[in-house]
Amino acid sequence: MKVGVLVSGRGTNLGALLAAEAAGALAPATIAVVISNRPGALALDRAAAAGKPAVTIDHKAFADRAAFERALLAELARHEVEAVVLAGFMRVLTTTFIERFPLRIVNTHPALLPAFPGVDAPAQALAHGAKVTGVTVHFVDGGVDTGPIIAQRAVPILAADDAAALHHRIQVEEHRLLPAVVQALAAGRVAVAGRVVTVAPGGPGADQLV
Amino acid sequence: MKVGVLVSGRGTNLGALLAAEAAGALAPATIAVVISNRPGALALDRAAAAGKPAVTIDHKAFADRAAFERALLAELARHEVEAVVLAGFMRVLTTTFIERFPLRIVNTHPALLPAFPGVDAPAQALAHGAKVTGVTVHFVDGGVDTGPIIAQRAVPILAADDAAALHHRIQVEEHRLLPAVVQALAAGRVAVAGRVVTVAPGGPGADQLV
Repeated sequence: MKVGVLVSGRGTNLGALLAAEAAGALAPATIAVVISNRPGALALDRAAAAGKPAVTIDHKAFADRAAFERALLAELARHEVEAVVLAGFMRVLTTTFIERFPLRIVNTHPALLPAFPGVDAPAQALAHGAKVTGVTVHFVDGGVDTGPIIAQRAVPILAADDAAALHHRIQVEEHRLLPAVVQALAAGRVAVAGRVVTVAPGGPGADQLV
Repeated sequence: MKVGVLVSGRGTNLGALLAAEAAGALAPATIAVVISNRPGALALDRAAAAGKPAVTIDHKAFADRAAFERALLAELARHEVEAVVLAGFMRVLTTTFIERFPLRIVNTHPALLPAFPGVDAPAQALAHGAKVTGVTVHFVDGGVDTGPIIAQRAVPILAADDAAALHHRIQVEEHRLLPAVVQALAAGRVAVAGRVVTVAPGGPGADQLV
């Protein structure tokens, strides 16, 4: 299954996916293309260093969101992409885009959804006084962080945590969970019934998926 | 610190508190009285078997909620109660009651609040397709499951779970967490700043509180 990864920044999740692929832990998924909406994003360097097509499609160069998304879709089609991973991609996708990849767009969120959706989730969790938060890998639907949940892992909040320290510990789990989900999706081990997603056991990331 | 426990049903959380007290793990907290709003609740038998005053205050015997709460407060005062644990207590308390025990009423909820507040939280989590839920021990304020969070523990949702099986695994954690919180509260290790609660390390339940 050819995967396109959309990025905007440092690309640490992309790094985790590339490392998994290099270790043989992503097959039968392969990363076919990495697209950044921000020119010069560090993620593009990571992609190029791994020998992956690294493409910039600057949203500012397009008249509107629809034109930008058409360009994204064309680039993904050119690489025969069947599934999309949003890896720190900072643009909202419209239903026009989303409906082109039904249950084939994966996003991560640094909280245990439905708790703390939206921006700055680690800071939200700290301000709320939560003692446990975590990371969610979910399918993207038309809402903000509302799509069916594929996998979650808990992360304890420590008394000394600030948002940056907490986010870092969440990302450690995120970088384990996301490649395991992509591998399971490509291997056909992910079943969806309504909004309940089941991941069948097996695969190199099996112990990452509770 | 003398603690009053309010119950309505089987009293499994009460059982955990009584076991902790018997093991010396609740001190300096002591359970001074157990009050049920339902006559014949199994929790009353547990209390009596442990040699605790087991009192029935049937809410149906009172003209209104205010009169019922006055009777509760009088019984708690008679036993010099300083803190209250809601252990499966199925009546909503008004702010009149709550304000008599500021930051001294503790409740448990079978989810990681703010996710899945209200009734049937394990079933809510399953229907949402969550992969991780848990238990929250929190102070009671005027809202439904909105008070400051004292402690939380995560519980994974398994593919084979129904609501009963999931609730059972949540209760296992609940029965570990609640006595540790009551002990910490009595020992003066719980500090509150706004809605952020900090539990200082130490005490017999220290390893239960992340």
